[in-house]
Amino acid sequence: MNIFLNDYNDLCHEKVYKKLATVKEKGNPGYGSDEYTERAKELIKRDLKRDDVQIEFLAGGTIANIIGISANLMAYEGIIAVESGHIVGHEAGSIEATGHKVELIYSEDGKLSGELLEKRMEDFGEEYHIVPKLVYISQTTELGTVYSYDELREIYDVCLKYGLYLYIDGARMAVGLAASDVKVEDLCDLCDIFTLGGTKNGALYGEALVIVEDELKENLRHFMKQRGAVMAKGFILGAQFEALFEDGLYYELGKRAYENSLKLSRAVEETGVSFYKKPESNQIFIVYPKSKIDELFKDNAFEVMPYDEENRVLRFVTNYRTTEEEIEGLKASLINLK
Amino acid sequence: MNIFLNDYNDLCHEKVYKKLATVKEKGNPGYGSDEYTERAKELIKRDLKRDDVQIEFLAGGTIANIIGISANLMAYEGIIAVESGHIVGHEAGSIEATGHKVELIYSEDGKLSGELLEKRMEDFGEEYHIVPKLVYISQTTELGTVYSYDELREIYDVCLKYGLYLYIDGARMAVGLAASDVKVEDLCDLCDIFTLGGTKNGALYGEALVIVEDELKENLRHFMKQRGAVMAKGFILGAQFEALFEDGLYYELGKRAYENSLKLSRAVEETGVSFYKKPESNQIFIVYPKSKIDELFKDNAFEVMPYDEENRVLRFVTNYRTTEEEIEGLKASLINLK
Amino acid sequence: MNIFLNDYNDLCHEKVYKKLATVKEKGNPGYGSDEYTERAKELIKRDLKRDDVQIEFLAGGTIANIIGISANLMAYEGIIAVESGHIVGHEAGSIEATGHKVELIYSEDGKLSGELLEKRMEDFGEEYHIVPKLVYISQTTELGTVYSYDELREIYDVCLKYGLYLYIDGARMAVGLAASDVKVEDLCDLCDIFTLGGTKNGALYGEALVIVEDELKENLRHFMKQRGAVMAKGFILGAQFEALFEDGLYYELGKRAYENSLKLSRAVEETGVSFYKKPESNQIFIVYPKSKIDELFKDNAFEVMPYDEENRVLRFVTNYRTTEEEIEGLKASLINLK
Amino acid sequence: MNIFLNDYNDLCHEKVYKKLATVKEKGNPGYGSDEYTERAKELIKRDLKRDDVQIEFLAGGTIANIIGISANLMAYEGIIAVESGHIVGHEAGSIEATGHKVELIYSEDGKLSGELLEKRMEDFGEEYHIVPKLVYISQTTELGTVYSYDELREIYDVCLKYGLYLYIDGARMAVGLAASDVKVEDLCDLCDIFTLGGTKNGALYGEALVIVEDELKENLRHFMKQRGAVMAKGFILGAQFEALFEDGLYYELGKRAYENSLKLSRAVEETGVSFYKKPESNQIFIVYPKSKIDELFKDNAFEVMPYDEENRVLRFVTNYRTTEEEIEGLKASLINLK
Repeated sequence: MNIFLNDYNDLCHEKVYKKLATVKEKGNPGYGSDEYTERAKELIKRDLKRDDVQIEFLAGGTIANIIGISANLMAYEGIIAVESGHIVGHEAGSIEATGHKVELIYSEDGKLSGELLEKRMEDFGEEYHIVPKLVYISQTTELGTVYSYDELREIYDVCLKYGLYLYIDGARMAVGLAASDVKVEDLCDLCDIFTLGGTKNGALYGEALVIVEDELKENLRHFMKQRGAVMAKGFILGAQFEALFEDGLYYELGKRAYENSLKLSRAVEETGVSFYKKPESNQIFIVYPKSKIDELFKDNAFEVMPYDEENRVLRFVTNYRTTEEEIEGLKASLINLK
Repeated sequence: MNIFLNDYNDLCHEKVYKKLATVKEKGNPGYGSDEYTERAKELIKRDLKRDDVQIEFLAGGTIANIIGISANLMAYEGIIAVESGHIVGHEAGSIEATGHKVELIYSEDGKLSGELLEKRMEDFGEEYHIVPKLVYISQTTELGTVYSYDELREIYDVCLKYGLYLYIDGARMAVGLAASDVKVEDLCDLCDIFTLGGTKNGALYGEALVIVEDELKENLRHFMKQRGAVMAKGFILGAQFEALFEDGLYYELGKRAYENSLKLSRAVEETGVSFYKKPESNQIFIVYPKSKIDELFKDNAFEVMPYDEENRVLRFVTNYRTTEEEIEGLKASLINLK
Repeated sequence: MNIFLNDYNDLCHEKVYKKLATVKEKGNPGYGSDEYTERAKELIKRDLKRDDVQIEFLAGGTIANIIGISANLMAYEGIIAVESGHIVGHEAGSIEATGHKVELIYSEDGKLSGELLEKRMEDFGEEYHIVPKLVYISQTTELGTVYSYDELREIYDVCLKYGLYLYIDGARMAVGLAASDVKVEDLCDLCDIFTLGGTKNGALYGEALVIVEDELKENLRHFMKQRGAVMAKGFILGAQFEALFEDGLYYELGKRAYENSLKLSRAVEETGVSFYKKPESNQIFIVYPKSKIDELFKDNAFEVMPYDEENRVLRFVTNYRTTEEEIEGLKASLINLK
Repeated sequence: MNIFLNDYNDLCHEKVYKKLATVKEKGNPGYGSDEYTERAKELIKRDLKRDDVQIEFLAGGTIANIIGISANLMAYEGIIAVESGHIVGHEAGSIEATGHKVELIYSEDGKLSGELLEKRMEDFGEEYHIVPKLVYISQTTELGTVYSYDELREIYDVCLKYGLYLYIDGARMAVGLAASDVKVEDLCDLCDIFTLGGTKNGALYGEALVIVEDELKENLRHFMKQRGAVMAKGFILGAQFEALFEDGLYYELGKRAYENSLKLSRAVEETGVSFYKKPESNQIFIVYPKSKIDELFKDNAFEVMPYDEENRVLRFVTNYRTTEEEIEGLKASLINLK
């Protein structure tokens, strides 16, 4: 079976698994006040070249988004996101459940731009509008596209102009770093708060939430506790992120996932199949005849999304475990089914 | 160091750790639709002797409470709990954050009773009251006390009379089963929904939420997703609970924690120190002079709570890893400091 | 000044004002348990030819929408509305503030259709989606268009098919009844819950919320109380609705507003100005050069909305107080400014 | 019938009713941007001797409390109130429905004190606690007691020390001003935000919310809109408050209600009946045999509350319309039933 189902279908990277075995047998303090968490935070700060950020480790992507997005919003403040944003259609109304409206922007390629944002801001200002306060984007995006340094800069400049926080959902940030000219140490200059996703990049579970803007730091731990986002055995999160950041494993796994995606998109291109969106990261989308999907499923694992009467969009995801054999296998399947 | 800090200060039981290594290298389906989760659910159903319950695995106790308590409540419905209930003062307003009021009952020993509940129900009924809909209790309680079968029966009968759901927070259910005459297969007859806590009983993290009442099942997964309570790598939760339930490890660890607590309470009693509440499970509370606490901390780990000007309440918790040496060590400290 | 600002710029109809003077000098029971409210409810039930509906009087349109829409929703349930729906962009996120997501449908003329709804329902069903539960429409719509009996029937049939509640925002229902083939006694067959707006049709303030579906009735009063929607002096609301419904005043005022709008649209048409949307009720929208608006404001009161670089959309609203002189006056202004 | 039911059982004071007739026949701007509202605000500012406060008019007490209390709270912040506070047991969980926890303090006479507040603050500070942010008190209290200047000063000083906002629910502020040494111009020095209730003091409906603290002003109108608290015909609220404040009617009615309560409490005292709480304002509570209540109801209107097996607490409320005859009538009934 050639597995392109998603980037979170294995236990974890073996270095992460082994690191767990080194956790003290007993007496670890709870709720993240332990030495592993402390070291993991220091390692990430070192890489970010910033000592003044706050870092919290959370169990998963949805809860990380809830915490990072809604912690500091007044009841009448809202969020701006592109229509394909993960929080818009894939989290069962998680943001609205915190009481905040998500105002949408349509974007062909799943990316926001400074211009789109600037234009959308014209729609607000009356007392019967919400007050926009936070902009949500994802790196890499839900359509597999990737922001460059300049694109993020442009968006953030508009945010600064209007007093908007910029939140970057980095569930796939490791690949985003491999696939763009954005360096990890640039991130703190390009937004107010972001995540470094672990679940899709070698951890058993866990996202690091990095808070740059001071206003967003105060009392965040209370909010995390309230939403069930503080893990009792926080030291397990800490140990995982220590393993991911002590020797650059985090970046290496992202790079491998990205390189595998380059190979995959080349292989797919050679079969003549049409891409749905230009492949830029480890999510590759193609348009494919509905009638052939069952056959393709025989040897390949992937996800299917709606498109039109005749066709579907298929998503193939690589990660650091993707092999040459899998890529060649999928290619062969696509050719055989032509 | 004699560690009585809490029951979640180790990584996990070694059988749980080893079980993880058996998870398939790749291709595990996400969000709990995997074979480990499936097997873990079947094992728990086997023990409960009930095929018709719904089981969900959640990352921690607070999120399990949020999901189990508020999933099926209308906006104007509320919860009844004793004042010492975990959700009242230890989760930063997690239930109120879902929009629901928690109505309080004062109880000397931290236990609700049918009589207390019946009496409290007289306070509602006007349109300016919330409509009570769910009763929250904990087994074992936050004060270390334990409900018997008859006590639960009595409470649940009042719940049934008034159309109230009964939710049992089982963060320490494994000890509760060891410390009471309640058998695991009784639980489905004694309430509508409950948890079997893993975090405090051998897991890395995780609580099993068992939904007995049909009304509480529908669309629960949507609600979990919305609150960030669905783990992408759900198979890791599944594998842990498989390890805990395939050979009765869950019950064995609870029993060991309880037996250790019996030894501890006997040892403490012999020192002449006064208990704050009669010890009934693995949380032992004593009243202790403030002035001697620093000295006691030198060799012993425990938690401190307010009491009066001169004294504090100290909490000592045993778990399955507690040793004779630790118990004797604490006893010696208490005697030395007299 | 020719006043086309909106339909709520006068105190109230004189019969309503006079009715207030007949309220008992003292001893009126509070919270709507009075004789005026009782009689007003009976009058409306008489007109609806339904004895089994529940009727509640609320202070205004936004609070009526909050109560009518979110009373009976589970946390994970959501609302479907057209993009131009009042609750989408004109109530500062009032529905999201109750925790529920509003899923949008684009509609050129501001009207939903059975077909549009049926198609939109295909987008749901996964656990990462909200569960659609209530459909919101307005009669008349925010763009001045009007649903026919058959159109409402078609929408409601799709709602029944999918187990969706249909809510009709009737802030302008009196005009809707005058402008369509829908009779007031049809309404209970065409939806589950709706409002009969008073604020825009002769009352000082107040909307009647009519609940047809039994599931939506239970405990609604608790929810109203919770959201600050129960008026202490409910008898004042009751007296107003008694005045509006005892002699058909409600329908008469709606008819006059509609007839005035027909005259207005004819007058506007004769000036050659282009309509933004085909005029069907008492809100008339035209596309007008930005440069001439200041001049037009000299003698005329109206609202201005964005359109393009050169032009704006202007809204002219008639009500039962609109005079021939005002209509002729606006026509003259439009001709003079050509 | 001697009416002591409550202080909101008449239409309104005749000066208020007449003022409405002076509202312009048409063309009044909506949502409080009208001349009546403007003048009413200026009149209140004049009386408060403060130009820098923000004033908003709201339809009723519950919605005023929701707006005034929760407008500026972060999700993890909570409220402190005495157990008998109106928001605790009489608004169906209105504050919790905004997501915020209300932490309770027990007080024998329904009044908070600086000492009680200071002591309660010791209970917070851990990340598993809410962060207390606003203190709620009522003048007069729900038990009919009244704060003096010094008592309010003491409470507010503790609030300032801990960075807590102080909110005074002034549903009965007019009586509070008559019954205490607090002058209306003192109020802005004694709290951050308060209401001047109109519903219980001569208006058809309406409370003035006065915001002193700048932090609480920003974007409040958006929040009001979101919660359905902005009246379309705001000019009707404005006109009522103009009537109440242009000639001191507001204070005069409060004074009359208070004087009537003094007469009533003297009359009741003379009958030998026991008071439940020492009468200090226009709510008089007595303990009365259950068996005689039906007889007492024949000629008198009042409210009944629980007490013990044999007795109930009865509440008698005076307002500006209470007559000597009613007071003598009630006295006679109490004597006859001895």
